[in-house]
Amino acid sequence: MNSLTGDLREPDADEEVRQAKCQRRIKLTVEYDGTDFCGWQRQPNLRTVQEDLEVALSKVLQEPVTVIGAGRTDSGVHALAQVVHFDTGNPLACENLIKGANSLLGRDVMILDMEEAPPTFHARFSAVSRSYRYRLIRRDRPLLRRYAWHPGYKWNDELVEQTVGLIVSEHSFMSFSHARPGETEYLCRVTEARWEADSDGSTFHITADRFMHKMVRGLVGALIDLGRGYYAMDGFRHLLEQPEKVGAVRTAPARGLVLVSVAY
Amino acid sequence: MNSLTGDLREPDADEEVRQAKCQRRIKLTVEYDGTDFCGWQRQPNLRTVQEDLEVALSKVLQEPVTVIGAGRTDSGVHALAQVVHFDTGNPLACENLIKGANSLLGRDVMILDMEEAPPTFHARFSAVSRSYRYRLIRRDRPLLRRYAWHPGYKWNDELVEQTVGLIVSEHSFMSFSHARPGETEYLCRVTEARWEADSDGSTFHITADRFMHKMVRGLVGALIDLGRGYYAMDGFRHLLEQPEKVGAVRTAPARGLVLVSVAY
Repeated sequence: MNSLTGDLREPDADEEVRQAKCQRRIKLTVEYDGTDFCGWQRQPNLRTVQEDLEVALSKVLQEPVTVIGAGRTDSGVHALAQVVHFDTGNPLACENLIKGANSLLGRDVMILDMEEAPPTFHARFSAVSRSYRYRLIRRDRPLLRRYAWHPGYKWNDELVEQTVGLIVSEHSFMSFSHARPGETEYLCRVTEARWEADSDGSTFHITADRFMHKMVRGLVGALIDLGRGYYAMDGFRHLLEQPEKVGAVRTAPARGLVLVSVAY
Repeated sequence: MNSLTGDLREPDADEEVRQAKCQRRIKLTVEYDGTDFCGWQRQPNLRTVQEDLEVALSKVLQEPVTVIGAGRTDSGVHALAQVVHFDTGNPLACENLIKGANSLLGRDVMILDMEEAPPTFHARFSAVSRSYRYRLIRRDRPLLRRYAWHPGYKWNDELVEQTVGLIVSEHSFMSFSHARPGETEYLCRVTEARWEADSDGSTFHITADRFMHKMVRGLVGALIDLGRGYYAMDGFRHLLEQPEKVGAVRTAPARGLVLVSVAY
């Protein structure tokens, strides 16, 4: 192209100029059913949400795309509104990109919304809080099995409701979390922790600035063990107040967990 | 056995006596996610709810079992409370039978309840009414895709709400149904037909003494075509009032349909 137009500038410099002009940061909101994914994060030979999105976006944009998500959900965890960003030099309108990418994605993942974002926007690091919910059902149910956990024993909602408020405020959640390589700090500021009982079961709602690995599922495992009398409230408080790991809590299964929203 | 014990009565007569003494009629309530089933009714080489139930019950009871369901749901249609009956000579307590059978069934089908029924009880012929609901969503959603239909265009709920009452009372539903071999009579008495709109979509509720093949899905297809302006109310009324088939309506997909309950 350069030789044909007689442009004598280096192709690399040209490319830099083009990119400086046209590189766009795009913000996506994505819903997925985590059941048939091995989580968010790309892994060799496994189906992940990140890779499926990257493959679809790369095909439509005709260039390699790397996406960054607000929350690295585990295998089997769902998202109603995962937030994602990526950069592209392709000027294709968001409206056409969303249609093209969705037509290439499986029926269990879908881009709900796409918009241009400022270059300083970062899906993960700009997030100020994330909200999750966890659904528990009192009876196993074929029509709910992909999105709820039936613990297999009874629990007392009142006991849990009396205790759940302890979670709000800043704590080290080491006792409720799994270690992830490179993680040294387990302090999270929880701004909402609610337990709502209804006729079919209970729902745990939690919002925090950050979440450790398997932390919501560890909290649910401990809360349900408290609700069936395995812990007293003081035992739960002890787990929360110690900065170090002081006991192994049960991790509730992934299927009941949904990333509901991310705030910026 | 007869020759060993020296009993000279005919084996057939023996069997009749045994059955007259011990044969029990059992009524089951079953929930299933129809997504991965080829419908209720047993068919060679296809996975069906009837066959899965028969295989599980036969294994636990150690005798061949044939089950009869209240509604022959189509491939992909769900049930919250399908009612089923079968006969057995095995005196195993219902409590143990339900546990044993559920442990052999896949996670997408489950016996919710089991009880002894009088020998005159018939899951299909004793039913006085069946209730179905159909879920429509305004936006395609990965977390709802197995249990709802997104028609792909907008519809006006008010138009549908003004029309849906016409369905109540006795009509021939030939225009809304598919022919099934041997079916000559398309008259059904509808006692409830409601359209409920909410922020995510709409739900159609219908109760009738009987349902023709694909009738609910034909009604939903016609109602949504009315809601987007393809029919006027008079066109819909014409389809309802003619005893013969006067037009082909669209059949809404199976995934939005749930058999909710059966009344006796």
